[in-house]
Amino acid sequence: MKQLQERDLKHIWHPCSQMKDYETFPPIVIKKGEGVFLEDMNGKKYLDAVSSWWVNMFGHSNQRINDALYRQANKLEHAIFANFSHEPAIELCEKILEVSPKGLSKIFFGDNGSSAVEIALKLSFQYHQQIGKSKKTRFVALTDAYHGETIGALSVSGCELYNKIFKPLMFDVIRPTGPDCFRCPYNKDRKHCDAECFEHMEKAIISDHEEISAVIIEPLLQCAAGMKMYSPIYLKKLREICDKYDINLIADEIAAGFGRTGKMFACEYAEITPDFMCVSKGLTAGYLPLSLVIMKDKIYDAFYDDYTTLKSFLHSHSYTGNPLGCAVAVETLNIFKDEDIINKNIEKARYIEKSVLEKIKDIPYVGEYRQLGMVGAIELVKDQESKEPFDWKDRVGYQIYKIALEKGVLLRPLGNIIYFMPPYVITKKEIDFMTDVAIDSIKEYFKL
Amino acid sequence: MKQLQERDLKHIWHPCSQMKDYETFPPIVIKKGEGVFLEDMNGKKYLDAVSSWWVNMFGHSNQRINDALYRQANKLEHAIFANFSHEPAIELCEKILEVSPKGLSKIFFGDNGSSAVEIALKLSFQYHQQIGKSKKTRFVALTDAYHGETIGALSVSGCELYNKIFKPLMFDVIRPTGPDCFRCPYNKDRKHCDAECFEHMEKAIISDHEEISAVIIEPLLQCAAGMKMYSPIYLKKLREICDKYDINLIADEIAAGFGRTGKMFACEYAEITPDFMCVSKGLTAGYLPLSLVIMKDKIYDAFYDDYTTLKSFLHSHSYTGNPLGCAVAVETLNIFKDEDIINKNIEKARYIEKSVLEKIKDIPYVGEYRQLGMVGAIELVKDQESKEPFDWKDRVGYQIYKIALEKGVLLRPLGNIIYFMPPYVITKKEIDFMTDVAIDSIKEYFKL
Repeated sequence: MKQLQERDLKHIWHPCSQMKDYETFPPIVIKKGEGVFLEDMNGKKYLDAVSSWWVNMFGHSNQRINDALYRQANKLEHAIFANFSHEPAIELCEKILEVSPKGLSKIFFGDNGSSAVEIALKLSFQYHQQIGKSKKTRFVALTDAYHGETIGALSVSGCELYNKIFKPLMFDVIRPTGPDCFRCPYNKDRKHCDAECFEHMEKAIISDHEEISAVIIEPLLQCAAGMKMYSPIYLKKLREICDKYDINLIADEIAAGFGRTGKMFACEYAEITPDFMCVSKGLTAGYLPLSLVIMKDKIYDAFYDDYTTLKSFLHSHSYTGNPLGCAVAVETLNIFKDEDIINKNIEKARYIEKSVLEKIKDIPYVGEYRQLGMVGAIELVKDQESKEPFDWKDRVGYQIYKIALEKGVLLRPLGNIIYFMPPYVITKKEIDFMTDVAIDSIKEYFKL
Repeated sequence: MKQLQERDLKHIWHPCSQMKDYETFPPIVIKKGEGVFLEDMNGKKYLDAVSSWWVNMFGHSNQRINDALYRQANKLEHAIFANFSHEPAIELCEKILEVSPKGLSKIFFGDNGSSAVEIALKLSFQYHQQIGKSKKTRFVALTDAYHGETIGALSVSGCELYNKIFKPLMFDVIRPTGPDCFRCPYNKDRKHCDAECFEHMEKAIISDHEEISAVIIEPLLQCAAGMKMYSPIYLKKLREICDKYDINLIADEIAAGFGRTGKMFACEYAEITPDFMCVSKGLTAGYLPLSLVIMKDKIYDAFYDDYTTLKSFLHSHSYTGNPLGCAVAVETLNIFKDEDIINKNIEKARYIEKSVLEKIKDIPYVGEYRQLGMVGAIELVKDQESKEPFDWKDRVGYQIYKIALEKGVLLRPLGNIIYFMPPYVITKKEIDFMTDVAIDSIKEYFKL
């Protein structure tokens, strides 16, 4: 493996990495994947507890999906999607609308999460121009929001870590303070509150609604912010006020979608239908970049006119509607149905919760354990009482990550939040292994 | 097919389309691809003269690539690319650097062309912040440039058709007038001029160089602008002035790369090495979305430091370094080598030129036929003398496109520019068929 690591470091710039860290912690070169495990060139296995950045669902190198991919390649690998179409795209749209919130009906294709967000923002912007509400040119997004890293997506993202330096390139966004349930300023509990924190959003909308085209939000789960979870009541209130002021609601279900939160889409918890829903990641079960922007008819209708009115939405990516990605996505939705995944996950989610709660009892650095469906997160703090966080420079999460890797579990925490978002094929035995290693690694780091 | 078309139109919003046009011209549903042909559900074949938006190279559903894809899927479909790596990515980087301009050495992965452009812009911006040239925050791009449609990429794009409405979301760009060889204001010829038109770029740079981080350009070929072609001398001059004023040169080879212009990369004609080279499209021979930003060591070095200096480049896409895309790209580069594609294309390019020139002689609406390598373009004008264009509302190109489709060739012109950018596997017989149908369709439209 050493030789491959050297060859890697000669040319490759890895994402979200300080490459100098790789001097002492070289890239682990993976040879193959199987189920929840990734295996390196030396034969060492790692349980992929983060589903390789929240994308994998049915295990690595899943035979059923591999075969669907190959079948499609042998028919049609790709064709231009303007004026042309193909069965995998048509089937995918029908199948995904069956499981999407009611009232969504039209679909635009993108290549990845950030392009889906960019498409939704541009559509909402142009929509308001074309229905005569030309003042509605601005967007609202929460503090700590993450919606991707191309300039448009980055503009609506609120994580300073990612976007501070690029501010001169970004457009200005209205940014009300979002929910912060772990350190709730109202001293409430996310399971029993009335989303009192919605007041910031309400105030922002009441004050600027004439200029607001859309609110974009990650429903229930702000992943990149550190698996922050909040009440569905927040979403209900948001849907209501958006309706009142003719504001589009964009639900960024890129990470939360496809069962991660326990339901197919997180919006279901609030029983709302957004005007736009962006999906990606799990859409292809962790295989290929593909995204969809699923929306209401009213959006489509505002662009539907004679060519010479110039109302078309001129946005395209070369691989729009890629048949290989679509075929994999169709097979993914088939597996959801055939194997009753959402229901089966209820039991698995319970087991994860039980498994973690038992083991963290005596760790004095656990600020909170929160879970929503198949996502569980341990927030480590310096002091349980005051909830004071560790100094970011100590890189507590990063050190624990390295210990756990040694022991065979891939955790890759977000700052000091150790989380579990495993592929759905994980077994109880594997859950035990995953949580054992995570807790042991935490204890080892703190010398407990 | 009719039933599939109805199912398609119920839900799918196609890219770069006024959907109302589909009422009379419903989407052609493709069943399979083989070589240069796409075949619809009724068994009708269409020669893909535009390589499905400039991506296909070795024919549709190429067995060699299909097998490489399946082999990789059976090993590893995807793994997180932060701290992890795999052979297809390592091999791809080595192989592409072998054929890239000398002096390029580090590679960052993206999912598609627009994300590659966004990455290059962000890297250049942050680079200058980190080497102490914090005033260098602006970008230069040409009129008529096309670099993609996410907000950052759209900001540097100069085609008003695509970005006019979104101006309030875009950052401000310095935009000198670019080359316009067909209507050259200096009355020169692109093959014998001294790129006199560079004076606009020169003036812009001299005036604002202290604020300029990078110039982004499509080398030699502005595709979306209508297959505009210009002299390599322009690029030589640009490289020189960028060096003089510490400005990064970003070569957007997304459409031009991988042999389209006759050389592996268009930059070779000018014998220059850009600071960043963005590649996508043909990188996977038309199979999958994947892109690379290939750059000089100096960029990488400016980000390489202790973690706590916060100099990391925090940009990622979930599917960064996707092994399936990488394996296909490796096989693509293998085919280039094994089958001596670049050299074989010389003869094919000559044949295309000869074939077109013979046939357009007596068409009074041909303003110019221009060709560069495997890209040939017929610009139709109302008047050959004055070069007056047709009224865009007449949609001349679109009408010819529809006629040619009936006859079995997929042209999809850009405005009134009918162009040929076929897969490299095209045979002489197929070239004859392609150009025959194109010219016949033009004649039929004009009743000649």
